[in-house]
Amino acid sequence: MWEYAFGIPDSLFIRGDVPMTKEEVRTLSLSKLRLKKDFTVWDIGAGTGSVSVEAALYCSEGRVYAIEKNDEALKLIRQNAEAFGTSNLTAVPGKAPEALCHLPDPDRVFIGGSGGKIEDILALVMRRLKPGGVIVINAVTLETVHRAKDCLSGGGYEVETILVNISKSMRAGGSTLMQARNPVFILSAKSAE
Amino acid sequence: MWEYAFGIPDSLFIRGDVPMTKEEVRTLSLSKLRLKKDFTVWDIGAGTGSVSVEAALYCSEGRVYAIEKNDEALKLIRQNAEAFGTSNLTAVPGKAPEALCHLPDPDRVFIGGSGGKIEDILALVMRRLKPGGVIVINAVTLETVHRAKDCLSGGGYEVETILVNISKSMRAGGSTLMQARNPVFILSAKSAE
Amino acid sequence: MWEYAFGIPDSLFIRGDVPMTKEEVRTLSLSKLRLKKDFTVWDIGAGTGSVSVEAALYCSEGRVYAIEKNDEALKLIRQNAEAFGTSNLTAVPGKAPEALCHLPDPDRVFIGGSGGKIEDILALVMRRLKPGGVIVINAVTLETVHRAKDCLSGGGYEVETILVNISKSMRAGGSTLMQARNPVFILSAKSAE
Amino acid sequence: MWEYAFGIPDSLFIRGDVPMTKEEVRTLSLSKLRLKKDFTVWDIGAGTGSVSVEAALYCSEGRVYAIEKNDEALKLIRQNAEAFGTSNLTAVPGKAPEALCHLPDPDRVFIGGSGGKIEDILALVMRRLKPGGVIVINAVTLETVHRAKDCLSGGGYEVETILVNISKSMRAGGSTLMQARNPVFILSAKSAE
Repeated sequence: MWEYAFGIPDSLFIRGDVPMTKEEVRTLSLSKLRLKKDFTVWDIGAGTGSVSVEAALYCSEGRVYAIEKNDEALKLIRQNAEAFGTSNLTAVPGKAPEALCHLPDPDRVFIGGSGGKIEDILALVMRRLKPGGVIVINAVTLETVHRAKDCLSGGGYEVETILVNISKSMRAGGSTLMQARNPVFILSAKSAE
Repeated sequence: MWEYAFGIPDSLFIRGDVPMTKEEVRTLSLSKLRLKKDFTVWDIGAGTGSVSVEAALYCSEGRVYAIEKNDEALKLIRQNAEAFGTSNLTAVPGKAPEALCHLPDPDRVFIGGSGGKIEDILALVMRRLKPGGVIVINAVTLETVHRAKDCLSGGGYEVETILVNISKSMRAGGSTLMQARNPVFILSAKSAE
Repeated sequence: MWEYAFGIPDSLFIRGDVPMTKEEVRTLSLSKLRLKKDFTVWDIGAGTGSVSVEAALYCSEGRVYAIEKNDEALKLIRQNAEAFGTSNLTAVPGKAPEALCHLPDPDRVFIGGSGGKIEDILALVMRRLKPGGVIVINAVTLETVHRAKDCLSGGGYEVETILVNISKSMRAGGSTLMQARNPVFILSAKSAE
Repeated sequence: MWEYAFGIPDSLFIRGDVPMTKEEVRTLSLSKLRLKKDFTVWDIGAGTGSVSVEAALYCSEGRVYAIEKNDEALKLIRQNAEAFGTSNLTAVPGKAPEALCHLPDPDRVFIGGSGGKIEDILALVMRRLKPGGVIVINAVTLETVHRAKDCLSGGGYEVETILVNISKSMRAGGSTLMQARNPVFILSAKSAE
């Protein structure tokens, strides 16, 4: 269904009332993940599954696990996986970190939502991440920025943080209005080889 | 009612469905206006009158004219003027540039809305502005940025443009979410002495 | 020398290699301070003294204390105070919080630099701030944002945070290039009446 | 050499004094280009060739033409193409639009620099672009935003514009300072199928 590189337009995903990582932030996050074709990827707090779908399209010889506690969201993830033909995407019901225990060790971990348990999640992720692995976190609250940074630094990771402010054009009566998206902090960290 | 310097919180204004220049952009715009106590100020497209009110509070020995075509907005301007006790604020019904003809020459002009007639408005403003006068424009569309800049440059004005992206904290379940305001371009230009 | 309201252009200050709060962030910070004419203001980590000078111009019946540890900066503060004729501005040599001990209790406190001691400084400031007083902090590092917020919340203060991204036009061969300033977090908090 | 998806770190490119599209803006621009493996891509004003290299890595069965007038930049493009092993990247010396005449019709066109001739370049590009083709433009001046938008609209293209403000963490004495990159407007437009 999607025949191009990264950057699936938001409008192509089936959406409910579930939060979705928007196109541009999704693209930037995926690029920071440094994906390879055969990687095992965890997408924690997968929401509508938009990051999982794009990761799964790229990691055609690997597998993407979309961990999500919300039933409505899980349904959307499965619908989106089917719509985009990503049979290598597995929806994993449950809360992180518990729901992560039985998954295979990841090469890459994306955290879009942490349900207030970022420390517990990162503790498990840092234990399970393969050598040379990469963790990318989208943070929209100042608390998550701090707690994630603190946790990763404590685990010996070097953290790169970018702050992304994007606005997008909207036609308004012959004029081009720029509509702001909320700022997102994208943290990325790499484990020792 | 307001006993401090610039920066009246948005919540203190009486508001309807009329657009309002938000606190931070209002403060920046007022600072670029380089006000003096006895100045005559035009606020074109005054909306709820928040810029007019702050300008009138500062220009206590001058006079501020709030030009506005919308009846609902005019009512709000008058209500806000009364609430803040700014008797030196005159609400002027009508569309710019026509409605500007009978006003006294301005020392300062703020343009918050131009109703698609920015060229006509600026042509009249540049003719009527006193020597050493200042024009400040808030532009939220790319077209207004271009047309205003073009017009002012054509009139021999040097234009300074700042692009302002502000987001503001909101409590969300114990966390601090940053909510973006749409980007605003603030143009300012000074006439020859 | 400066005859207008807030927003003295950066170029009017005498500057060395000392950091200076730039025009737009200075204006926003001063507006968040909610100044009155007769207020006592502490400007902690005053740098070139640009915030102190603007506060002193407004608080003509009050007094502004510019606390600064750096000798070169202290010299600039005194030069700028003289240039702008603000005899109600006192340069206070020394490090915060120690240097604050003998100053009169403040109505308003601005913290532009904390030398890594934001907790100690805020502990003293919260003890000394008059009822209904306001603290405004400029933070350019993620750590200061967190530590200041944490400290103020711990002291029972409600904190408002704005994130300010401003870019400014520069002429480049007939074109208008927008040059970014680093993002600044402006925190403000009010003590109980 | 580069084994991952989009987003080659800036530091991996050989650089001189030539402007380079930075990592994040490059990734976003490439995603907006909607690349396919066998596409013919023009990169106009290629600078150091970073966009060309990433496009060439993705379009492994296609060909990327890096058009550049500056000799120093051309040298860098060839060095970077060699370093990243992209034999499907052709450096094309000369100025656009003249230098474009003998190239095969493009599926995709990226314009990173226009040398003040954006209208002439877009006129030729719109004539030569294949049906369903995509044009992406990076604009850092307000004039280029306007002129490109005007030109594309005149040619019947629907234009999407995003405004990107990114800042990046830098360690400064144990603290995390956010350093701003200049804002970039990314315009994208698609021709009729």
